[in-house]
Amino acid sequence: MLPKALSDAIEALGMLPGVGPKTAERYAYYLFKSSDKVAGNISEALSNLHKGVKSCPVTFALIDADEDVSPLYSDESRDKTTVMVIEEPLDIYAIEQTKSYKGTYHVLGGAISPIDGITPEQLHIGELIKRVNADNVKEVIIATNPSVEGESTALLLEKMLHEQNPNLKLTRLARGLPLGVDLSYADQITLSAALENRQAL
Amino acid sequence: MLPKALSDAIEALGMLPGVGPKTAERYAYYLFKSSDKVAGNISEALSNLHKGVKSCPVTFALIDADEDVSPLYSDESRDKTTVMVIEEPLDIYAIEQTKSYKGTYHVLGGAISPIDGITPEQLHIGELIKRVNADNVKEVIIATNPSVEGESTALLLEKMLHEQNPNLKLTRLARGLPLGVDLSYADQITLSAALENRQAL
Repeated sequence: MLPKALSDAIEALGMLPGVGPKTAERYAYYLFKSSDKVAGNISEALSNLHKGVKSCPVTFALIDADEDVSPLYSDESRDKTTVMVIEEPLDIYAIEQTKSYKGTYHVLGGAISPIDGITPEQLHIGELIKRVNADNVKEVIIATNPSVEGESTALLLEKMLHEQNPNLKLTRLARGLPLGVDLSYADQITLSAALENRQAL
Repeated sequence: MLPKALSDAIEALGMLPGVGPKTAERYAYYLFKSSDKVAGNISEALSNLHKGVKSCPVTFALIDADEDVSPLYSDESRDKTTVMVIEEPLDIYAIEQTKSYKGTYHVLGGAISPIDGITPEQLHIGELIKRVNADNVKEVIIATNPSVEGESTALLLEKMLHEQNPNLKLTRLARGLPLGVDLSYADQITLSAALENRQAL
């Protein structure tokens, strides 16, 4: 009953994560009502997406298809003896925006999650251990997400890296109160962590 | 810092209504991680969207670009002497899904809204009046949204159509309790309308 081109667009947009039929309908109708440049831009950007992006073979960050390794690794000013381990490539940009980290990154490609069938073998842990040896790494900052999966992954990494090299400095991001949160709204685990890691004034 | 193809995709997807930078990032990264067929499908569907869809010159419903008028109008089994007036083309599909309407439709293309700069002249009201005369219409069902804009538009339509033809039957969709809503959660205006329009058992 809907014009085919419109129902095709609704169906295709419904493949986006968290987008149901009503939202897809709204997106498609909005694009139809807007200048065809908007739909054209999205169409072109998506058709170039896979061609233009690849994983860095060393850090597993996302890089331009014509680059060899991540510029955040090849850049001479970055400290290769400090490696921050994160779950997903986009976490890098969250950290980079703080402008307070000058080391390099290593993307695991997820976190251990038996329910989702993600085992340690599927993560880039072997490559991390190789890098620790090859680049003579002094400190590994484990920055997995503060979730059950992230915490288990952090524990496993700690064990494996310590076995490899007992002198390697292992750290993780501090737990505590985020800025702007009212004490009474903080959850118990965050509050306990903030109390335990209290800082001297 | 992000690969260009990825930041292009994030920027383009951020043009969708209600999609901020974080959601656009999530969409783009999801598409990058999925098979390139998903991004390809969306890309193709959106590039065909404007080419494949046009407005019906009589009812202003959305139709395939190769159709002359809406099949919901040209279909001999539809009653052309009953016209339902709705704001947007997608409203048609909401009504059609009920399978309880056999008349035809007329899309206004919005509702009067001085704040958004939508005046009566921008709506397809002139074409409606022409149709009422040409098709010898007996009943016009005003099915604008139950919003301030929809109600003002309904009042104006009522006035204009009555002036044209005082014998024309004008109706609007019933106001009352929607299915599954608890009395105590219904808003006051809905509840007053439901009381006022109470039905004999």
